[in-house]
Amino acid sequence: MSMLDCPASGKGCSSGDVPSQTGGAAREKKTIVMKFGGTSVGDLDRIRHVAQRVKKERERGHRVAVVVSAMAGVTNTMVGYCQDLDPQAPATEYDAVVASGEQVTSGLLAIALNALGIPARSFQGWQVPLRTDGAHGCACIESVEGDAVLRTLDQGLVPVMAGFQGIGPDGRISTLGRGGSDTSAVALAAAIQADQCDIYTDVDGVYTTDPRIVRQARKLATITYEEMLELASGGAKVLQTRSVGLAMREKVRVRVLSSFEEEAGDEGSGTTGTIVVDEDENVEKKLVAGIAYSRDEAKITLRRLPDEPGIAYAIFSALAEQGLNVDMIVQSIGLDGTTNLTFTVAKADAAAACAMLEELHPHLRYDGIEASHNVAKISVVGVGMRANTGVAATMFRTLADKGINIQVISTSEIKISVLIDAAYTELAMRALHTAYGLDGDQEVGVQG
Amino acid sequence: MSMLDCPASGKGCSSGDVPSQTGGAAREKKTIVMKFGGTSVGDLDRIRHVAQRVKKERERGHRVAVVVSAMAGVTNTMVGYCQDLDPQAPATEYDAVVASGEQVTSGLLAIALNALGIPARSFQGWQVPLRTDGAHGCACIESVEGDAVLRTLDQGLVPVMAGFQGIGPDGRISTLGRGGSDTSAVALAAAIQADQCDIYTDVDGVYTTDPRIVRQARKLATITYEEMLELASGGAKVLQTRSVGLAMREKVRVRVLSSFEEEAGDEGSGTTGTIVVDEDENVEKKLVAGIAYSRDEAKITLRRLPDEPGIAYAIFSALAEQGLNVDMIVQSIGLDGTTNLTFTVAKADAAAACAMLEELHPHLRYDGIEASHNVAKISVVGVGMRANTGVAATMFRTLADKGINIQVISTSEIKISVLIDAAYTELAMRALHTAYGLDGDQEVGVQG
Repeated sequence: MSMLDCPASGKGCSSGDVPSQTGGAAREKKTIVMKFGGTSVGDLDRIRHVAQRVKKERERGHRVAVVVSAMAGVTNTMVGYCQDLDPQAPATEYDAVVASGEQVTSGLLAIALNALGIPARSFQGWQVPLRTDGAHGCACIESVEGDAVLRTLDQGLVPVMAGFQGIGPDGRISTLGRGGSDTSAVALAAAIQADQCDIYTDVDGVYTTDPRIVRQARKLATITYEEMLELASGGAKVLQTRSVGLAMREKVRVRVLSSFEEEAGDEGSGTTGTIVVDEDENVEKKLVAGIAYSRDEAKITLRRLPDEPGIAYAIFSALAEQGLNVDMIVQSIGLDGTTNLTFTVAKADAAAACAMLEELHPHLRYDGIEASHNVAKISVVGVGMRANTGVAATMFRTLADKGINIQVISTSEIKISVLIDAAYTELAMRALHTAYGLDGDQEVGVQG
Repeated sequence: MSMLDCPASGKGCSSGDVPSQTGGAAREKKTIVMKFGGTSVGDLDRIRHVAQRVKKERERGHRVAVVVSAMAGVTNTMVGYCQDLDPQAPATEYDAVVASGEQVTSGLLAIALNALGIPARSFQGWQVPLRTDGAHGCACIESVEGDAVLRTLDQGLVPVMAGFQGIGPDGRISTLGRGGSDTSAVALAAAIQADQCDIYTDVDGVYTTDPRIVRQARKLATITYEEMLELASGGAKVLQTRSVGLAMREKVRVRVLSSFEEEAGDEGSGTTGTIVVDEDENVEKKLVAGIAYSRDEAKITLRRLPDEPGIAYAIFSALAEQGLNVDMIVQSIGLDGTTNLTFTVAKADAAAACAMLEELHPHLRYDGIEASHNVAKISVVGVGMRANTGVAATMFRTLADKGINIQVISTSEIKISVLIDAAYTELAMRALHTAYGLDGDQEVGVQG
């Protein structure tokens, strides 16, 4: 069995089990997966509203399958129960308890749809079945058997699948980790060769940056998978990183849109929100697609380490063994045979990382260790920067003009991230948004 | 597949699929099913308490499997959600929603047991599997496959099965109807050949009558299956009628006891509560085992019906077609070619029954119809009355002595029921309790 989700697990990933998507545009009727998050199904009135939304999509002639999260707050209540009984509750039982939230929503939405005259039936993960690797609490999807769901669609019913859950090789319920319902929806869309996977959420699309910080932020009509991936891992919280990776590999057309806003036109879905597409489909060929920020990281600096081979290896292998994820790293070489090493970890991991480095002091022989929580990571993302060398220079000049000091820099093929003093977050983001021509009332910088 | 539960469905019932219970007493270790109702698992503290209770039973050397209900109130909340969305919610979806309650409790109890160092794992109905006939909302159990649960016991774990739910031939979750967890527990006990099925509830056993009404009510050490059945159908609410019928057919030794009271002795289970046994095992050979009452029935009288053949058939077949269950019937023959017919139905059905009879008036040509909700049914139950003719006479004399008029009488082999004015309920029960020698401080009337 090939691994559908989480190829990073080392089990490899081929799309052998998953039929590739073909000919969607040629069909008369589209097949659409609609996914609704916890706030979209937060109470009975909202569930009724979602049912209306599904009804409207059916009336446009489309075949619709739905994926739902638990009602807002329910998962937290269930997690609270488990932790109250035992902070180290067995993950198998945690899964049985927590997965009940999606079970309830799937049944309730099926009831609401039937009440509107739309025949519907719920599917639990084990009924589809959506098979996982059985890593309870944070399982990866191995495969989704689309047959039962497709049969249900063929009978004219709306299948309503409980998100976030599947069945492991042990025959037990396993959950995909927080936010896993996005990944469930993309996996189902791949399995039934859906033309589109619409992720309904509480924002109306993907923005060039956080509109709460930059007033001129613009909603993007399209974004590429890779840009979406980098924005998500850079701190943008619209879509789960895992679901974007899966959509990219399985070529699932994902759209992000608001469940609280009506569609503008009647001519069919796909006219609002943001569509995540392949690079060659991307109509908005901008240098920079968006700017993300994260205040979730802490900076740790080791001063005056001996500048010897093997020191960096000793540090980062020890951190990895403890499961402490390192993001950005910078090393400055000194003149006196010592060096300063700076890196970032999740704020929640900072204390553990420092404690471990203190233990290693006899071996590492550094002068001092400093940790700062008062930093922000700003990331500029765009596939356009592959072919354009000026992007980094623009970033550094813009920040310098505002007197903002760059503490750490890290780059990938389509992303440049810098670590700065957290107090300058908003200032930096607004300046960069303007510098890259992203402001709503400005000319958009079109690429070659 | 033979039908395990609900033989009244006409599908017949053989015990072919269910191994009969043998050799329990000869084993070193007992296998015990412990069932806990909704109030017993009403919050996390009570779930912890139940875990302690299970631990104690294990420390006595027994192998223990557990069956749980939903936390008190949860099922009502879920039913309320379904009805709010659609009073005619599809039973398939109702089942998916409502069964989540037992799923949560099974996982939480497994967590609480593990926290006490007792390895445990939850089983959903579909995981056992407990197979039903798929009549959603009120399914009957067709079979319980004991293998997975037995394997779990053999591994030294405590299986914790979610009660009230199973999987139907359609592969979907089906529930057994309210109170169905008792039946789940008895069916599991039969499937794994348990030596005993302990039903933990909020009373400490089966009493000769309702102690809230008759102060001298005594707890019975034993009661026969048939007596328990008649008491349950006569209005006593300790055990579900269905579970008693199943226990009788499968010869499951059922014990009723309180989850809020500690066991007296340490020498093993079976020393407290009431044990439901075969007639030949019954040590307390009393004439009358107990007295039940019900205020849930209404009396309907048709005055001056034509005394013709076919009239009773016309009435009761019409009621049956509407699904209106008739309990007691009495007909008094008049001298003028007319007759008065009296019968009882559930209070909730009285209006529908009267409306139907009004419609039939052109055909039935009765003079008048009267309905009274102001009646109570008092039932005296005991296997001893099979061999003893004085039981009915004692009942009628006792009620006459107190000036209580008997409106309707109905009898079965081991039960006599009378319908009286509801105002006399307590008086009648106390007088009968004394007359049959059931009072706690009296000599017990021992039979032949």
